[in-house]
Order: sequence, then C-alpha cells, then structure tokens
Amino acid sequence: MFPKNTYVNRRNTLKQTLKSGIILFPGNGESSMNYADNWYPFKQDSSFLYYTGIDHIPDLYFLINIDTGEEILFGNNATPEEKVWIGSAEKLESFAEKSGFSTVKPLDQVASYLKTQVAKGQQVHYLPPYRSAQKIAISELLDIPIQEVEAKKSVALIQAIVTQRERKSAEELVQLEEAVNITRKMHEYAIINTKAGMTEMQMAGTLNGIAVSGGGGLAFPIILTKDGQYLHNHATTAVLSEGDLVLCDCGAYNTMGYGGDMTRTFPAGKTFSPLQKDVYNIVLNAHESAIDALKPGTRFKDIHLLASKKLVEGLTDLGLMKGDADEAVAAGAHTLFFQCGLGHMMGLDIHDMENMGEQYVGYTPELKKSTEFGLKSLRLGKELQEDFVLTVEPGLYFNPFLIDERRAQKKYMDFVNYDEVEKFKSFGGIRVEEDFVITKDGSKLLGEPLAKTPEAIEKLRNN
Amino acid sequence: MFPKNTYVNRRNTLKQTLKSGIILFPGNGESSMNYADNWYPFKQDSSFLYYTGIDHIPDLYFLINIDTGEEILFGNNATPEEKVWIGSAEKLESFAEKSGFSTVKPLDQVASYLKTQVAKGQQVHYLPPYRSAQKIAISELLDIPIQEVEAKKSVALIQAIVTQRERKSAEELVQLEEAVNITRKMHEYAIINTKAGMTEMQMAGTLNGIAVSGGGGLAFPIILTKDGQYLHNHATTAVLSEGDLVLCDCGAYNTMGYGGDMTRTFPAGKTFSPLQKDVYNIVLNAHESAIDALKPGTRFKDIHLLASKKLVEGLTDLGLMKGDADEAVAAGAHTLFFQCGLGHMMGLDIHDMENMGEQYVGYTPELKKSTEFGLKSLRLGKELQEDFVLTVEPGLYFNPFLIDERRAQKKYMDFVNYDEVEKFKSFGGIRVEEDFVITKDGSKLLGEPLAKTPEAIEKLRNN
Repeated sequence: MFPKNTYVNRRNTLKQTLKSGIILFPGNGESSMNYADNWYPFKQDSSFLYYTGIDHIPDLYFLINIDTGEEILFGNNATPEEKVWIGSAEKLESFAEKSGFSTVKPLDQVASYLKTQVAKGQQVHYLPPYRSAQKIAISELLDIPIQEVEAKKSVALIQAIVTQRERKSAEELVQLEEAVNITRKMHEYAIINTKAGMTEMQMAGTLNGIAVSGGGGLAFPIILTKDGQYLHNHATTAVLSEGDLVLCDCGAYNTMGYGGDMTRTFPAGKTFSPLQKDVYNIVLNAHESAIDALKPGTRFKDIHLLASKKLVEGLTDLGLMKGDADEAVAAGAHTLFFQCGLGHMMGLDIHDMENMGEQYVGYTPELKKSTEFGLKSLRLGKELQEDFVLTVEPGLYFNPFLIDERRAQKKYMDFVNYDEVEKFKSFGGIRVEEDFVITKDGSKLLGEPLAKTPEAIEKLRNN
Repeated sequence: MFPKNTYVNRRNTLKQTLKSGIILFPGNGESSMNYADNWYPFKQDSSFLYYTGIDHIPDLYFLINIDTGEEILFGNNATPEEKVWIGSAEKLESFAEKSGFSTVKPLDQVASYLKTQVAKGQQVHYLPPYRSAQKIAISELLDIPIQEVEAKKSVALIQAIVTQRERKSAEELVQLEEAVNITRKMHEYAIINTKAGMTEMQMAGTLNGIAVSGGGGLAFPIILTKDGQYLHNHATTAVLSEGDLVLCDCGAYNTMGYGGDMTRTFPAGKTFSPLQKDVYNIVLNAHESAIDALKPGTRFKDIHLLASKKLVEGLTDLGLMKGDADEAVAAGAHTLFFQCGLGHMMGLDIHDMENMGEQYVGYTPELKKSTEFGLKSLRLGKELQEDFVLTVEPGLYFNPFLIDERRAQKKYMDFVNYDEVEKFKSFGGIRVEEDFVITKDGSKLLGEPLAKTPEAIEKLRNN
C-alpha cells in the first residue's frame, strides 16, 4: 500500500469534486469458474483499489457520505473456523487504519445504512457495474430493477474519478515502471526462447508463469500467435514454423495492481525475410513518428491519424496503396490494414478505467468518439496532459477476410492496389507497442528499452 | 471432441431418464476481470461440455425438448466485422454437426422458444447456476425472480446427470489419464526445481506455465506454500527457507477439459528432518491404507474414517494423541489435525459436479452429508462404484489457531496431549494426494507414478 495520506487525499479530492451525496464502491468478489468454490485469480476493482489500497480481500464495500463526512469500510473478518482454511488473516481494522478509515462495519450493514440514508433523501452515486454479481448487488441494495442499474450510474462520479485517475502521481509512476519491467522481461524471454516447432501455447504458458512470478499475474489474456493479422487471436495449439512471424502482445500487473502492456513481433526462424523487414520498418516508422508527436496539448486522435498516414506512405512505397496519403486516411482506406486504435490509457487497468465508458475516459463532451470502422476502436482521442500514461501500438494486419470483403464492396479503389494486396493474404500481422508517460514537453518511455528494430531483434534471437 | 455418437448417446440417456419437459443448458459466457472486455480464461460449463463437446465458444445455449424430440443449439456466428478480431471462426453449424444437433438457431430465439413452450404448459429443467450472469439469464428467460432461481432448480435433472457423469467411460479415462500426467509433470518439476530462497509465487508461476502449455490451463488456483497447515493458502510472496516443508497442491485441465489434482509435500532444503519424515510417514500410511480399501460397494465415508484412524494411531505413537483410536475418531478428535475430507470425485470438474450440490453428488437420500466439523468437508461419502474417479488425499495440519481454540474449549482432552501438540504449532502441514479410478475389484492409479516416499522425494530433489 501507499502511505495512508495518499488514500485520504484521494478521497478528499473526490469529495470536494462531488460536493454532496453518498459514493458507494463495491469491491469485487471471487469469480467462479465452473462451480461456486473454484475461483479465478482474485482481481480487486481498480477504483476500490485506487481509493483504499485494499487488495486481495473479496466482498468489501466502502462508502463516503459526503454530507455527514463519514467514510465506512464494510466487510467481515475471518471467523475462527475460516482460519482453518486461510490461516491468520490481517484484520479489516488494520487495513482500515492503513487506509485512513475510522469506521469498519459488518458487511450486512451496507443495506440498512443505505436504506436509512436514501429514506432521508440522500443520493447514492455508483459506477456502472461490469460484473453480473455487482449488478445484482446494486439492484438489491438500492432497490433498482436490474435492467435499470446501468442507466442509473452516476456520470458526475465517473467524471470526477477520471479527472483524478488519468494523471498519474510520481508514486504511481514508480509502480507502472515496475509493471512494465516485468512485462519487458516476458517479451525478452519470448524473443530469445521461442523456437520453430513449439506451439503458441507452450511459449504463452511460460510467459504466464513469468507474470505470476512477478507478483501480480497476467494483466490480460496473452496474444502470442503466428496469425497476428487477427487482432484478438489468443495463443492456440498451432505450431510455429520457420518463416512465420510471431506477434506477442502481453503484460503483467505488479504487486500493487499496476499494469504493463507491450507488443513485439519477431520471426519464428532466425531472421526476418526481406519483405517482413520492409513491412516491419513501416510499422516502426509510424511508431517512432507517433512517439515524437506525444506532448501535452496534442490530441491523441491527431497522433493516431499521423501514424495512419505514415503507414499509408510506407504501403504506397511498397506498391500496396496509391494516391494522396492524407486523402487516403480521410477516406479510411488505411483501415484495410490498420483496423484499430493507436493506443489507450494505462494504469490500474490496462485499458485504464474502461469500465466507466470510453467516451468519458478517452474523449470529451466536445470530442465524441467516432462510430466509423477504425476510429470507433480508438479508445483515446482527447488532448494529452502531463502525467497521462498510454500505449503507442501501430500495426499492419493483412486480414484475408477483410481484404476479400472490401474488394467485393469496391471500397477504397482510388487508394488500394488490390492485385498487390492479394499477395499479402498470408503475410500475417505486425505490431510494435510500448508504454509512455507524457512529460512537460514530450514523453518518456516506461521501463527499460527492449530490442525494437528488426536488426536488434535478430541479434537478441541469435545471441 | 469425442465421436458424434458419444454426445448423441449421452443426450438420449438423459432424455430416457427425465421422460418429459425441456432441459435447458446455458453455456458459460466470458467472465470479466476489471472491465467488460478484459476476460479471465474462458471455462465452459462442464455439463454443457459433457452433452455437446463444444468448448471455447461463449454465449451458447442448448436445449432438449423431450416431448417434441427437438435438440437445438442456440448461438451466433461471428459477423464479418468480428472476423477482423478473431479470424476464421468455425461455424456453429459445423460444431452442431460434430455434436449431432440437427438445429442451430440465433441466440435471441432462446427466449421466444421458451416463452412459447412454457405457455403450452411445458416444464423447463435447469441446473442451479453458479455464476451471477447465469442467474440473471435464467431469471429473465423463465420469468422467475432472481431470489427464486436457485430454489426452482430441477432436482430430477441433477440426479439424472449425476448418475450419468459419475461413472467415467473408457474414452473419458484416457482423457483423465492425460490430465493427471500433465499434473504429474507440474509436481515433478516442483520437487526437482524448488530451491530455498525462492518465493512461493516464483515456483507457482512456473507451474502455472506448465499447465497452460499443457493445453487446458490450471484446473484450480495453485496451493504452493510453506504454510500447508492452512488448507487453502495459495502461493504468496513468502520466501521458502531451509527447514520449511513445501506443500504443493495443483492440477491441470487437458485440452478436452478433464482435470487432474495431486499433492506432494517436500522439504525446501535437501532433506526432510527426522521429525518431518516421521509425520510424513503417518500421512503416507493413511494414504496407502485408504488406497487398499478402495473398491466397489465400500462407502467412501468409511474409508475416510479408516484413514482418520490410521492418522490417530500414528499420532499416538508420536505422543500427540492417546486412548483408543476408534473412540478418538468417533469423538472427532482427529479433526484437530485432519480438518477436511479424504477426497472427492473428479472429472470435467476437479470437485466433479460440485455446482449441482454436494448432497446429490457425494451422498444419497439415505446417507445425508454430515454437518459436523470435519465430516462436513467430506465431499464424497457414498458407496463406490466401478468407474468412479476420485482423489485420495489425507493430511496432517498443525494449525496454531485451531490448537489454541480447541485447547481453550477443553475439547478432546481424553485423546490429545496438548502439551506435546504445542511443540508442533510451527510444524506446518503435510498432504499426499493421488487420483484413482475404481475398478471391478479395487482401484487403479491414474497417471504415471511419481515419487511418494520421503526417500524417493529426497532422491528426486538431489539428483
């Protein structure tokens, strides 16, 4: 945990912004796999964690009653019999002390407390729940039909929290640096040790182990695949062969719950083919151009479009595209090869605060999130501020289904040389991803640098 | 998947047992960690898997309308745009064909189908849901208040499924053997490679990797701890030291979703201390006695009590207990050191079918599950039958909280030498666990044998 004052101050700031009412934070419970007592690894809700620092304990609530000044942690201590199973559990009172709460109450008093206060006319603010168990709980606690729980979320609370959490403090940056370094270790291991003949899962399993050993486990399901053209293709039992490109996108939490998220693409054999190297360098050039553009006051959407233009220019040199690059990007022709966004905020969540809604986290009332193919997958569009932490992850993805579909639709005919593109239908996909913090006048890479040029990657593989 | 006929026959058997009505099986959906799109590894519902063989696809339903003879798979194929993210997905029609379903319908028709049939007076059977998302779904589909969903489960369906799934077929035993061998590999790796100075998580992470590489991932959270006296103590950042006993309880699914579950206890240093070896041999003797007693027609509860008696006899020789062993077990005095059950059924779930209720899976209308401390944690009590698959896992756990509590309560004074027991309050815990299939006249170990005596374990560690 951070020092007590961190949490006290965070809650005070939130109170000052919201001004009145009750703020209710349900912590996460255990999540059942295939029967009630068989659990996935516990993951605390990230806002609960941000305002309390209390992790690893399921079934807690805390609330802030701004009007009375009360801050209450609700939960149950282990019974003597439960200690047979879990040993000596630190008492909730001890966590409350470290987190600056003066009051701890049993879990079953949340309902009566809220009922009393709602009857007095107090408004209860809550975040939109992303787990069904929380939906049911809020429905029961606040007597709201389940179907209306989402709609009755507090937009004021979302906005207040986003404003607080989007800029990372110095102590958070230390944690993020650590998480990215665990992540970096996974990637370095993969680049050095992946061999043709292995299955995707064999290497993914080992990387999973490195993440768990790092103390916080996997931040998201590992993508490690020779089919990197499919953006969410998780590791399978497919065998990696000489000539394949391996796209590895993975990351770890550190023990404090902060995450890292990187991608490297490398050959399953010893070297990239000349063509693979050419395409890789187009992606790398877009990546470097985007990094150069990172600074406070610049809209990330514009950097996304800049990177898209760099991709188009590279593909034009390669003969796959044609015409004016700006016009091609305006027409969306780049989305044939770059179907997603350039990056996203990162923090206690890999897509930071995504549970609150992408419009609230990555956009503004003036800058709405687009609904167009391509841009609708850009999670961050708004102006950057100092201390934002984000990923930069351009890529080129030669998806045969999409190529066939767009050609059949006669889309982008002025910008795409489909006959040339046909030759890339089994090329695969390439992505390069790193994590950055926005500084006063630019950006800083998080974590130690890791081989990024084709030459540096080949050197690491053949050491 | 098994051959089509396996699934067709399984469903036919179920229909013949239930005779009328609709049987509704909701498949599992994705389970969100900290925002909607960040998922834990997908785990299919095990009954859904048993009757269809369809894994890895979230948000499916299937139903059997016994009265009309219909068998329908409900789900949605990937849209062209979804293929951007996931690539070429095998069509549901193809899975339906392999599973012997003649009809596939879009997901949104489940509700209307059920509504029509319920209006006609048909009864809908469903299993008690163990995930909140399924609770909400059943509540909405069948118009049952959420609080009543559990109570309206179909006991007839539970009993029919338990009768079918509890005896494993030859083709299932091949799968279980494979799962246990992946599990065995994890344990062998841990015994050979765990070193004093490592954290518990460091080794647990590596074992996690072996499980994922095996194709099915972890079957349950890894217990790897120097504090084995706490039964559900998962791996932490604690450092293993010379002199510690390391208790490792872990297991993997194979690619078909069958699980393995083993435990070994070994020294963090090179050798067991003489006292550790003595206590280990008490557990091992109970373990071997239980295995010798496994055969059709014997109640597992009696084998549990037999193993408990062997533990008491060993502890008496060691000076920790006294008096008549049978009387000690009858008084529950052994539960000071052996607080849980001797084993449980295993199959597509590690605690097989536990989602349906332990009374229905492990007991009978004549043999009710006990509510006493100790016996209430015995998941399997009833008579064994040929082709049952189960674990045998006696242990001795020196839990300081429980020792203090029982001594303060003056419990078991006729059977326990508390002054001697005091000396064991930092001893730790020892468990030995293997998996067996019940044969015509005894039992057979699943998986290749793995070092089990203190001497064999020391040899493996010092190779």
